[in-house]
Amino acid sequence: MKAAIIGGTGYGAIELVRLINKHPFLEIGSIVSNSQSGSSFSEIYPHLSDIADQPLENFDVDRLSEKNEIVFLATPSGVSSRYVPQLLETGIKCIDLSGDFRLRSGDIYESWYKHSPAEDKYLQQATYGLSEIYAEKIKTASLIANPGCYPTATTLGLIPAIQTNLIDEKSIIVDAKSGVSGAGRGLSLTAHYSEINENTKAYKLGAHQHIPEIEQVLSDERGNPLTISFTTHLVPMTRGIMCTMYVNLKEEISTKKVIDLYKHFYQESHFIRVRPEGNIPSTKEVSGSNYCDIGLHVDERTNRLTIISVIDNLVKGAAGQAIQNVNLMNGWDERTGLTDIPMYP
Amino acid sequence: MKAAIIGGTGYGAIELVRLINKHPFLEIGSIVSNSQSGSSFSEIYPHLSDIADQPLENFDVDRLSEKNEIVFLATPSGVSSRYVPQLLETGIKCIDLSGDFRLRSGDIYESWYKHSPAEDKYLQQATYGLSEIYAEKIKTASLIANPGCYPTATTLGLIPAIQTNLIDEKSIIVDAKSGVSGAGRGLSLTAHYSEINENTKAYKLGAHQHIPEIEQVLSDERGNPLTISFTTHLVPMTRGIMCTMYVNLKEEISTKKVIDLYKHFYQESHFIRVRPEGNIPSTKEVSGSNYCDIGLHVDERTNRLTIISVIDNLVKGAAGQAIQNVNLMNGWDERTGLTDIPMYP
Amino acid sequence: MKAAIIGGTGYGAIELVRLINKHPFLEIGSIVSNSQSGSSFSEIYPHLSDIADQPLENFDVDRLSEKNEIVFLATPSGVSSRYVPQLLETGIKCIDLSGDFRLRSGDIYESWYKHSPAEDKYLQQATYGLSEIYAEKIKTASLIANPGCYPTATTLGLIPAIQTNLIDEKSIIVDAKSGVSGAGRGLSLTAHYSEINENTKAYKLGAHQHIPEIEQVLSDERGNPLTISFTTHLVPMTRGIMCTMYVNLKEEISTKKVIDLYKHFYQESHFIRVRPEGNIPSTKEVSGSNYCDIGLHVDERTNRLTIISVIDNLVKGAAGQAIQNVNLMNGWDERTGLTDIPMYP
Amino acid sequence: MKAAIIGGTGYGAIELVRLINKHPFLEIGSIVSNSQSGSSFSEIYPHLSDIADQPLENFDVDRLSEKNEIVFLATPSGVSSRYVPQLLETGIKCIDLSGDFRLRSGDIYESWYKHSPAEDKYLQQATYGLSEIYAEKIKTASLIANPGCYPTATTLGLIPAIQTNLIDEKSIIVDAKSGVSGAGRGLSLTAHYSEINENTKAYKLGAHQHIPEIEQVLSDERGNPLTISFTTHLVPMTRGIMCTMYVNLKEEISTKKVIDLYKHFYQESHFIRVRPEGNIPSTKEVSGSNYCDIGLHVDERTNRLTIISVIDNLVKGAAGQAIQNVNLMNGWDERTGLTDIPMYP
Repeated sequence: MKAAIIGGTGYGAIELVRLINKHPFLEIGSIVSNSQSGSSFSEIYPHLSDIADQPLENFDVDRLSEKNEIVFLATPSGVSSRYVPQLLETGIKCIDLSGDFRLRSGDIYESWYKHSPAEDKYLQQATYGLSEIYAEKIKTASLIANPGCYPTATTLGLIPAIQTNLIDEKSIIVDAKSGVSGAGRGLSLTAHYSEINENTKAYKLGAHQHIPEIEQVLSDERGNPLTISFTTHLVPMTRGIMCTMYVNLKEEISTKKVIDLYKHFYQESHFIRVRPEGNIPSTKEVSGSNYCDIGLHVDERTNRLTIISVIDNLVKGAAGQAIQNVNLMNGWDERTGLTDIPMYP
Repeated sequence: MKAAIIGGTGYGAIELVRLINKHPFLEIGSIVSNSQSGSSFSEIYPHLSDIADQPLENFDVDRLSEKNEIVFLATPSGVSSRYVPQLLETGIKCIDLSGDFRLRSGDIYESWYKHSPAEDKYLQQATYGLSEIYAEKIKTASLIANPGCYPTATTLGLIPAIQTNLIDEKSIIVDAKSGVSGAGRGLSLTAHYSEINENTKAYKLGAHQHIPEIEQVLSDERGNPLTISFTTHLVPMTRGIMCTMYVNLKEEISTKKVIDLYKHFYQESHFIRVRPEGNIPSTKEVSGSNYCDIGLHVDERTNRLTIISVIDNLVKGAAGQAIQNVNLMNGWDERTGLTDIPMYP
Repeated sequence: MKAAIIGGTGYGAIELVRLINKHPFLEIGSIVSNSQSGSSFSEIYPHLSDIADQPLENFDVDRLSEKNEIVFLATPSGVSSRYVPQLLETGIKCIDLSGDFRLRSGDIYESWYKHSPAEDKYLQQATYGLSEIYAEKIKTASLIANPGCYPTATTLGLIPAIQTNLIDEKSIIVDAKSGVSGAGRGLSLTAHYSEINENTKAYKLGAHQHIPEIEQVLSDERGNPLTISFTTHLVPMTRGIMCTMYVNLKEEISTKKVIDLYKHFYQESHFIRVRPEGNIPSTKEVSGSNYCDIGLHVDERTNRLTIISVIDNLVKGAAGQAIQNVNLMNGWDERTGLTDIPMYP
Repeated sequence: MKAAIIGGTGYGAIELVRLINKHPFLEIGSIVSNSQSGSSFSEIYPHLSDIADQPLENFDVDRLSEKNEIVFLATPSGVSSRYVPQLLETGIKCIDLSGDFRLRSGDIYESWYKHSPAEDKYLQQATYGLSEIYAEKIKTASLIANPGCYPTATTLGLIPAIQTNLIDEKSIIVDAKSGVSGAGRGLSLTAHYSEINENTKAYKLGAHQHIPEIEQVLSDERGNPLTISFTTHLVPMTRGIMCTMYVNLKEEISTKKVIDLYKHFYQESHFIRVRPEGNIPSTKEVSGSNYCDIGLHVDERTNRLTIISVIDNLVKGAAGQAIQNVNLMNGWDERTGLTDIPMYP
C-alpha cells in the first residue's frame, strides 16, 4: 500500500519514513514539501543518502490520490485543516499528525491555537487516534486525528485510574518533561543548542494547546467534564517524554493493587508495559520504540498515587502511533512494522 | 580566616575551593581526604593545576583546629556525626554540608537515612542554615546544618505562601528535577554517562531522605505538621535543580498579587530573584551563582498556584549557601565572595 | 538458527539482542553472564521488559552447543581466549567481539593488551571480520575476530586510498572521536556523567590497543609494514565514532576524482556510503544503523587528503558487523536484518 | 574605567559583562545593540535580572566616547570595520573581538571572509592581541584585533615548537573540536539542538576563515610563510575548544624534554599551564576560566609530537583575552579580574 507524507522536511515526516521502511505492507509513494519541492529528500536529510533520494513534490491533490492510498499529514497546525477536505473528497484516507482535528469544538481550538479551526463537519468526522482506547472506531475511520505527544503519555497513564473511579478527578496534576525534538525542526531560541543544553526550562504555563485535548479525552472517559493542571518542561535531550502525574486516591489502596488493575486494563495492549512494583520507567527505556511504559507508586503518607508514563515523542507520540492506526484501519496486527526493541543505550 | 575542608575529593569540596578562592576574607588551611591522603589535590582534580597543589591530609582534629578557624564538612552522611563533636570541642566552628545534623529527631533520621543518627545534644545544638530565613540564628551559631539542595529550592519557594496563609497546606506537591552532579563523584550506574545521557529518570519515589527535612522546615514555618508529596527526577545535565511546586490556593488571587507578595517577602534577600509575570526561570539562568530564582503562575482554571524555583545545586544548594552562612556568622555582608554573575550560556 | 550471547550484561550484548530481534533467520538461544546468572535479563535492562525476560545462564559449553548453532562473545579481552577453544571443539561457530583473536601475533597482543594472548593456533585460525574487505574468507570461517570500533571506521576509510597507491603511507594520521558507550557499562570516572558531560577528552595517547590492529590490516592491504599516528578522544555523546584522517597525496588529484575512486571501490558494498563533494557525514547520520559513511576532501593548499569516516560504534563497530558476518557465513544476503534507516534526529 | 560593549546581544557580549563584573577597575558604561535598542538587557538575558537591567542603546559614536574610555566590539565580521574608524577618531581605544582587523592583508581577508575588508591603514594599525606573545605591543596599542578562538588555542600550542625549530613546519596538522557556543546566538540548523545533540560534525573543510589568521601568526613567528592543515568539528557541548595538533619532529626528543622546553617558554605566562608527562588536559578543566592548558606527547614510533591545547572559547578565546589585553594596555597585572578557578564539574 502506497502512502504519501505531507510536511516532508519536519521530524515527524522523517520518523514516518524510518518506520514505513520497516513495514512489510507500506511503501512511500510521495513526499510533499512545498517549501523544498524540487530538492531531493536526502539533500535535506543526508542520513537518507542512498535510501530516499526522490525529489520532494508540491502539494497536488490529484497526483497524490492517484499514486497513494493513504496520506500522513505531518504539517504545522493550520495547514492540515486546508488540505484534508480536498484529500478526503478523493476517497483517500488521512492520518493527521497535527492538532487540527483533535478538538471537537472549533471555539476551543481557536482559543488555544489562536487561529481559525477546521470546518465543523470535519471536526465531527475525525476519529481520535489513541490506539489502545479507540481501536474499534479507528478500524472504520477515514480521518484520524493522531494524538499529540503529551496527550498520549498523559491519557494512557490516567485512563485506567479514571475509568475505575479510583481517584478524585479534581486533583489531577501533570508535570510533563519533554526532549527538544518535540519543538520540531523550525529554528527558535528555545531549541538553540547553547540555550537548552545543560538547562531545564518550563514553558507555556497553563497555556499549552495540549491541555484541552487531554481534558476532552479524560472527560469522555469519565463521563463528565474534567479540568487538570498541566505543566510542560524542556529537558536537554532530543527524544522522550515523561509525564509524572499526581492524583488523590478516593480510598486507601496498595501500590500492588493499582498495578494489578493497570495490568488488567492493558492486558491486550501490546505496547503498554505496566512495570512491577518498585520499577519506574525512564524515557530512554522506550527510545525509538512504540512502547508506552507506566510506573505506579502509592504514597501512603499522603494517600496520593504517582503515575509515571514515558514514550518516545516521535514514535508513540507521533509517527509510531500513526502507523499503529493504519494497521488497525487495514485489519493488520497492530504491531506490524512496530516490533523494534528500544535503542539502549 | 583559614578554613578546612573535610571530604576533599567530592564535588562539594571542589566547589568550596572554587568559591573560597574568590572570597576576600577566607583562605584554605587544610583539605582532608582519608581515602586519598598524600596525593596532591591537583592530581585528583587537574583543573586545579598550579592553583591547589597541596597534599590531601588525614583527619587529625588537633592539627585541623590549630591551623583553621572554621571547618566545612563535605562528607557523606554518617561521617560528620562522628567528626563534628570532636571538632566542636576544640572550639572550632563547623558547617556541615551532609544531612547528619539537619533533622532534630534522631528517630526520623534513622528511618530515612537507614543508619544511626548523631548524638541528640548535637542535633539540638545545630542551626539549620537556610540563610534567608534563619539569618539571625545563624549569626551566633557554632554548628550549622547546611540545607540539602532540594530542600533549599523547595522551602525558599514555598515559605512565603505558607507564612502568609495563602495555600491549602495539605495540597503541596513538589516535582523536582536535578542535574547529575547531585549524585556526587561516587561511581554508580545511575551516574554512568551512557545510562543517563539522553534520558530522564525518576528515582526514590516517596523515599528521598530530603522529604523529612523539607517537612520539618515547612512545619516550623506553618506552626503545625505538614506532609508533602515530593518526587525527584534526574535530567541529563550536570548542574541545576528545578522544583515545580503545585499548591491549591485558599482564595482567588492574581498572579500579579502573588508576585508582589513574594517580592515583598524577599525584599532584603539579595540572592532571591522573584521574576515578573510571564517570566519563568530556567536552571541555566542561575548556573555557577548563589541565586535562587522564583517564577510564579496562578492557573485560574484550577485555582492552583504553580511555583518554580531554580538553583545551582552545588552553589546555593551546597557550597555557596555554606559560604553565605560563614559570612553571616562573621558579621560580613552576606554577599561577600558570592557576587558572580551566572555563567550563561 | 539459534544464537548464544556470552557477556550478556554489556552494551555489546544488548545491541546484539536488539539486532537479532529484527533478523528473520536468527533467534536467541542463550544469554550467558556468569556475574548475573539467575537474574532475568529484563531485571538488568528494563527496556527489555516483556521482550527478553529469560534468565541469564552460567557459561556451560555443553548446554550452549546443544541449544545453539552460533555463539557471539561480547566479553572483555582475556575472556574469549579461554572460552573459544572449548566452543570450537564442539563444532559451534564463534564470532568474537573482543580483541582476543584480532592480532595474529601473540607477542604484539601482549605488549598492547598487557595480558596473555590466546593460543597461537587459534590466532592463526581466526578470520578478521571486516566484512566489506574479507567477505570471501568470512564465508567459510568458523572463528571470526570481529573488528574493533575504531579499526572499522579507520580501515574502511583508508583502504581504497592505500590499495590504489594514492597516498604516502608514512603520512597517515588518524584523529578519532568516540561516544562514551565505547567504554562499556563498567563503572569508571572516565564514563561518570558529570566528568564527561560538557567535556572533550583525549585518552591513551599513542597507547590505544586498536593501533596494532589497524596497522596489521593496513599493512596487509599495502603489502608492507605501515606505522600510523592514532589518537582517541571521548566526546559527550553516547553513540558514534568519527575518524578524521589526514594523508599526504603522492600526486595532485581533485576531490571529485578521489570520490569517484572510492565510489568505484565500494560499488558493491551496500553499507558504505561515499558522500558527494562538499557533503561530509556526521555521526548521527548513521546512528543505530550498520552504515559507514565516508566524506572526502582534497586540500589543494597542502596537497593533503582528508578522509572522514563515521559509524555507530555499537552497530557497524560491533554488533551490526557481527550480524553482517553471520549473514556472510550462512550465505544470506549481507543486509539481512540490517536494513534499518539511521535514527535521526 | 568605563567600558562600552557593542554587539550586546551575542554570547561574546554577555561573557564580557560576566567578566567585567568581577574586574576591580572596569565598569560597564554602555551596551549597544541596534537590533534590540530600547529593550532592557535582562529582558533578553533573564540570567542578568537585577544585575544588568539597563536599556540597550543604539550606536552613537559621540555618546559612546563621552561615557566610556574603552570599547569592546563583539559584533559579526563586517560590522567592526565600519565602527572602529569613527571610534578611534574620538580617541577612544578599541578591542575588536571580530575578525575584521586580524589579517594584515585586505585581499586575503576578502578571499576567506567573502566581503570587503576594513581600510588598509586600520589593518596596519591594529595590534594582534595574542596576549602571551605580543604583550609589549599590546601595552601601547589603541586598536586591538582580539584573536579568534581557534587561533588562540592553536598558536599558543604551536609557537614554542616553531620558535625553537623543533618541528618540520610543512607537517602541521590541526584537528580542532569546538563547543556550539562558538557559532553564536544566531539561529541556524547547525546550532539547532536536535541536530547537534548526540552528534559530532566536521564543517568548513579547508575553508575556515581562521586558517589565514593562524598562518599569519605562525609565519611571523617562524620568519617565513607556513601553510597548515586545519579542520574544525562541532561536538555536542556548549563551551570549550580542543586543538589536537600533529607535527613531525626534526630530531628525536623525549616527551619530558619537550615539556621542559614548553614550561620554560611559558614560565612567565600565568594563564598557560603546561601539563606534566602523561597528563593531557580536557576542555572542562578550563571551563569558565582564562587558562590555556597544554598537553604534550612524543610518539616514538612515528617521531611525531602531539600537542593538545584547550581553552574556553568564550573566555581565553574571546572575552577573557580581551580583558587580559585591557589589563596590559593599562599597566595593570594581566591577571586582574581573571583569577577564577575553572568551574568543574
